[in-house]
Amino acid sequence: MSVVVRKIQRAERSAIDGLAECGVATVHEAQGRTGLLAAFMRPIYSGARIAGPAVTVSIPPGDNWMIHVAVEQCAEGDILVVSPTSPCDTGYFGELLACSLMARGVRGLIIEAGVRDVKDLTAIGFPVWSRYVSAQGTVKETLGSVNVPVVCAGAAINPGDVIVADDDGVCVVPREKAASVLAQSIEREKKEAVVRARLKAGELGLDVYNMRQRLADKGLKYVDSLS
Amino acid sequence: MSVVVRKIQRAERSAIDGLAECGVATVHEAQGRTGLLAAFMRPIYSGARIAGPAVTVSIPPGDNWMIHVAVEQCAEGDILVVSPTSPCDTGYFGELLACSLMARGVRGLIIEAGVRDVKDLTAIGFPVWSRYVSAQGTVKETLGSVNVPVVCAGAAINPGDVIVADDDGVCVVPREKAASVLAQSIEREKKEAVVRARLKAGELGLDVYNMRQRLADKGLKYVDSLS
Amino acid sequence: MSVVVRKIQRAERSAIDGLAECGVATVHEAQGRTGLLAAFMRPIYSGARIAGPAVTVSIPPGDNWMIHVAVEQCAEGDILVVSPTSPCDTGYFGELLACSLMARGVRGLIIEAGVRDVKDLTAIGFPVWSRYVSAQGTVKETLGSVNVPVVCAGAAINPGDVIVADDDGVCVVPREKAASVLAQSIEREKKEAVVRARLKAGELGLDVYNMRQRLADKGLKYVDSLS
Amino acid sequence: MSVVVRKIQRAERSAIDGLAECGVATVHEAQGRTGLLAAFMRPIYSGARIAGPAVTVSIPPGDNWMIHVAVEQCAEGDILVVSPTSPCDTGYFGELLACSLMARGVRGLIIEAGVRDVKDLTAIGFPVWSRYVSAQGTVKETLGSVNVPVVCAGAAINPGDVIVADDDGVCVVPREKAASVLAQSIEREKKEAVVRARLKAGELGLDVYNMRQRLADKGLKYVDSLS
Amino acid sequence: MSVVVRKIQRAERSAIDGLAECGVATVHEAQGRTGLLAAFMRPIYSGARIAGPAVTVSIPPGDNWMIHVAVEQCAEGDILVVSPTSPCDTGYFGELLACSLMARGVRGLIIEAGVRDVKDLTAIGFPVWSRYVSAQGTVKETLGSVNVPVVCAGAAINPGDVIVADDDGVCVVPREKAASVLAQSIEREKKEAVVRARLKAGELGLDVYNMRQRLADKGLKYVDSLS
Amino acid sequence: MSVVVRKIQRAERSAIDGLAECGVATVHEAQGRTGLLAAFMRPIYSGARIAGPAVTVSIPPGDNWMIHVAVEQCAEGDILVVSPTSPCDTGYFGELLACSLMARGVRGLIIEAGVRDVKDLTAIGFPVWSRYVSAQGTVKETLGSVNVPVVCAGAAINPGDVIVADDDGVCVVPREKAASVLAQSIEREKKEAVVRARLKAGELGLDVYNMRQRLADKGLKYVDSLS
Repeated sequence: MSVVVRKIQRAERSAIDGLAECGVATVHEAQGRTGLLAAFMRPIYSGARIAGPAVTVSIPPGDNWMIHVAVEQCAEGDILVVSPTSPCDTGYFGELLACSLMARGVRGLIIEAGVRDVKDLTAIGFPVWSRYVSAQGTVKETLGSVNVPVVCAGAAINPGDVIVADDDGVCVVPREKAASVLAQSIEREKKEAVVRARLKAGELGLDVYNMRQRLADKGLKYVDSLS
Repeated sequence: MSVVVRKIQRAERSAIDGLAECGVATVHEAQGRTGLLAAFMRPIYSGARIAGPAVTVSIPPGDNWMIHVAVEQCAEGDILVVSPTSPCDTGYFGELLACSLMARGVRGLIIEAGVRDVKDLTAIGFPVWSRYVSAQGTVKETLGSVNVPVVCAGAAINPGDVIVADDDGVCVVPREKAASVLAQSIEREKKEAVVRARLKAGELGLDVYNMRQRLADKGLKYVDSLS
Repeated sequence: MSVVVRKIQRAERSAIDGLAECGVATVHEAQGRTGLLAAFMRPIYSGARIAGPAVTVSIPPGDNWMIHVAVEQCAEGDILVVSPTSPCDTGYFGELLACSLMARGVRGLIIEAGVRDVKDLTAIGFPVWSRYVSAQGTVKETLGSVNVPVVCAGAAINPGDVIVADDDGVCVVPREKAASVLAQSIEREKKEAVVRARLKAGELGLDVYNMRQRLADKGLKYVDSLS
Repeated sequence: MSVVVRKIQRAERSAIDGLAECGVATVHEAQGRTGLLAAFMRPIYSGARIAGPAVTVSIPPGDNWMIHVAVEQCAEGDILVVSPTSPCDTGYFGELLACSLMARGVRGLIIEAGVRDVKDLTAIGFPVWSRYVSAQGTVKETLGSVNVPVVCAGAAINPGDVIVADDDGVCVVPREKAASVLAQSIEREKKEAVVRARLKAGELGLDVYNMRQRLADKGLKYVDSLS
Repeated sequence: MSVVVRKIQRAERSAIDGLAECGVATVHEAQGRTGLLAAFMRPIYSGARIAGPAVTVSIPPGDNWMIHVAVEQCAEGDILVVSPTSPCDTGYFGELLACSLMARGVRGLIIEAGVRDVKDLTAIGFPVWSRYVSAQGTVKETLGSVNVPVVCAGAAINPGDVIVADDDGVCVVPREKAASVLAQSIEREKKEAVVRARLKAGELGLDVYNMRQRLADKGLKYVDSLS
Repeated sequence: MSVVVRKIQRAERSAIDGLAECGVATVHEAQGRTGLLAAFMRPIYSGARIAGPAVTVSIPPGDNWMIHVAVEQCAEGDILVVSPTSPCDTGYFGELLACSLMARGVRGLIIEAGVRDVKDLTAIGFPVWSRYVSAQGTVKETLGSVNVPVVCAGAAINPGDVIVADDDGVCVVPREKAASVLAQSIEREKKEAVVRARLKAGELGLDVYNMRQRLADKGLKYVDSLS
């Protein structure tokens, strides 16, 4: 059955914006190393760092009809997440759809498939993380669903979950954990700032993290040469 | 048999230049979604957009001798298209060959294999779309053919066909269709300009494209929540 | 057995810096087309070109403990080379480790696995060639070895060998051959400068390299059209 | 947090065994084309067809400790489902673990990673669907979780869900839908038997499925030759 | 435009059957090493060796409607060749379609996409060479074309061309060359029989093919040890 | 420089035959998990298990000339190891070369490239582990070297090292370690026999390997449900 769910719950905007500032690597660590999408999801241009609630789309291979349906369900600040039911490198998305999403304040697109008009998308500054770039077009014949749970690039995503994306890739934070993950992310960044200062001053991680004894216990040997 | 065909027919320069301006995604749509090369063909640097008649090279794996032969067959404005008879990531092409092609006015290279000297090629502004980047060199021992029909990255290309390439990938337009595909591309761009203005103004694709009734007929359901 | 070898021999700094200037494609040719790492090793940002002696790390999948151990073994000008014992896209390395390496004057990282904090690494200018980008973290539970012979991305690398890396990829030069490979690289560059001038002036490679007779002997035919 | 959940609900045995008889392609269709694992999941030998409730394992890369923990949670007729948190081709599983699972009546293994002892596993008849075959061993250092929701090869799987696997791949049926999906599968098989008989007798699918008018409406043209 | 071409020319049956006996490797050599499909095209079971005229299908991703249309165009002894316009691992073809093709005497299927019901296809002995195996179903919404020129797995195929397929892969022979390629294949097999007898008797290829002088001329050195 | 090394040292035949009986997984473990070739090296048919000293070949892409040279260097019981200098799926090897190697008593072939005549190689029982199967032929134009150190599928192999290969893949044992690795392999098999008996009797690995306390120390929690 194909269905469009109109009402989804979204995390607090302040938590979302905080997560965007922390970035994917920090957020992923802070929530216990869960929720990362596969490494083949790459940004079409470098430097973007965004976060927003997911509007999810489950979609057939080579058919982008449901993206048009999904646009209407997007609110200011959302991120569109598109997952085909079968792997496909077709270019589901281009500059016209980006214009439509930008008009609604959507912050970016995550799609485990192809996109096109990369030159234009870069020029207008609409960030996309995709598996492929391809000019191949799609048809508009078969339904899918909007705002249902999806698996995208190996990660389970529910509508309203927070998506964080930057040059390192894409991570999903369950909606109800957004605030606590943000708190842990900030905590982590504070600790890292201290470590960073010490490392820059020339201290070794072996000492900063107190690793020497444990390495010796495990049996690590230091020698001058391999005899 | 190895052969070099010296006389090929090329499309009109004006049609070619028009196609370059339209770009791969538009041209590919305008000719009925045919002629796209595989999505693994990527530019070595972003932002280039070119078109030109194909000088084709069928070449053995790990042997770039025939590229040297092909240079002589290139005219001002051409694009060199190189397809190995067996998949190979070897670096067939580097900055010296680019200098030679630039001296003849060649606009770029399409190669389903590897290239090297990427830093230099970027500096001198010679655009390349390739499957791989690799410093591995080639030998000059085995013949191939120049200006014969080839399949490159999954697309059938005849000498003199128009190649269009940009950040979205590479597309081939049969020589005799260049003018009509250009006309359809321009037509398409005009229509898209109208749609773009409406979408930017906040209208939905659902309404612009009149999709609502057909979606309902197919059985799409709108609900407030799942169950 | 896990071991850290503390004393390794390094090539002369002058030879190393000369190799960096020549770049990967030239060096690889100059040493007889050996030592190239696989083409899937890509820089996280464009334009860097470095050389340095290898400090090698053999490391388990998903565990970056030994990188912390290896940092202490790095000297000014070194390049860290990390090879997992089993393929893994995990993000072994990020900005904190880069700060630590930069404090010691390390010039870059070569890793047949994943890295993260790409945005930060780019900002601080620490060059990395990796197989993957991934925010997925690692554990610190299992030992490996430092400064033992490794195979990284298909190339055999001994500690102290010279690594050369740029936009074309990564190449290893055996330590004891650094000076002679540099000499041959410079020789090669001189010859190429002469060829480049002739090609830019419009001479054909067919003539510059005297290929016409040998092509004819092999049986190459020139025709006006394919029958 | 690492956790082992001891009590999971399993579908009725009769429904499970019925699903095994129907096979992956039929079951996948019968439940609306959902739940299929990625096509890279392949059987280590041909001809097996099994079904059973999933005991799930979320596991680190290169570390199979939690499989040993999971064995104890397996009951007669179960299928073990193992998903690493990061892609890894390491051989997590071999003949000894298979002996242990067979002693408990486990029907097979689904693992998005590597297995080894393929010759022995084939000899003792323990079926495995895996992404890789590799002799590379694992460590036992890092915890994971047993009987938590996982994503395996792109499909979301809850403990107790029914796994169906054969030469076509692997499919998951949500536990609470097992009976209804079986009913629909049997219904589908009955219909297919009628169609099969007609097709074998030489009738065309075009007529059996009444496609001719709709094809004509869409604009399909029949011609004797391409002009 | 979508079109079904009803009348195609086929090669002589005797030439076709002769090519089947020779097998892919011999035929590919005999026609000058052209026409081989990509190595990712693999048989679903071992041991089949077939040849037949191609009935070609150009088809959208995830939509198998045109296969039903194509069945009607198949004659006794044909081979169906299916190429999607965009890469897709969906299972376009299963046992029911095989029954329909077998009722018409079709000898096998070549498809650059997925198939399913592998266990059943093996049982009924209908040979398939495909890129993927997948249970994922398709829709029937979008037209394609039958008996038009296609590129399948990197090879250009015209309707009526002879397809040869066995455990080594798939090769296409242009229709009008079938008889001459067969003659050259038989000639090649005769020569190989002589060579085979000499090699089995212990003679070396170096002598059988008279390679020693040419190797020496190229500079090959024989030494007792390195250094 | 291209060179053929005529005299290589080989391990004792008794050690080699013992390693063959143990198989890849055991041998790889017994030598400390080193020497495994990449998982993409697969047997062309199931069930073979061989060992023998390596005769190594470094070879250009798409050129199998040096295999003919290498045959002469093979002695009874050897295994031929072929590694191209650049990745290539070309079919370097077929049934005629196998006849020649079998006449010399060679036990099998390891090649990080393509092979052809798979149906014939299976029929005559000559085992091959390759990365690809492809009917594409090679040329005989460019030299390489025989019995020099090579990296094949990610593993460093010296001539005379022992190759072990079975359905799990391929492993290399340094020549001088053959006897000690065999001793450790046999030791390992003895221990596994004891464990196997206990596991088959229904004991759990958790108890056999004494894991419970260490799991608890690491913090593993057992719960009845996920609250």
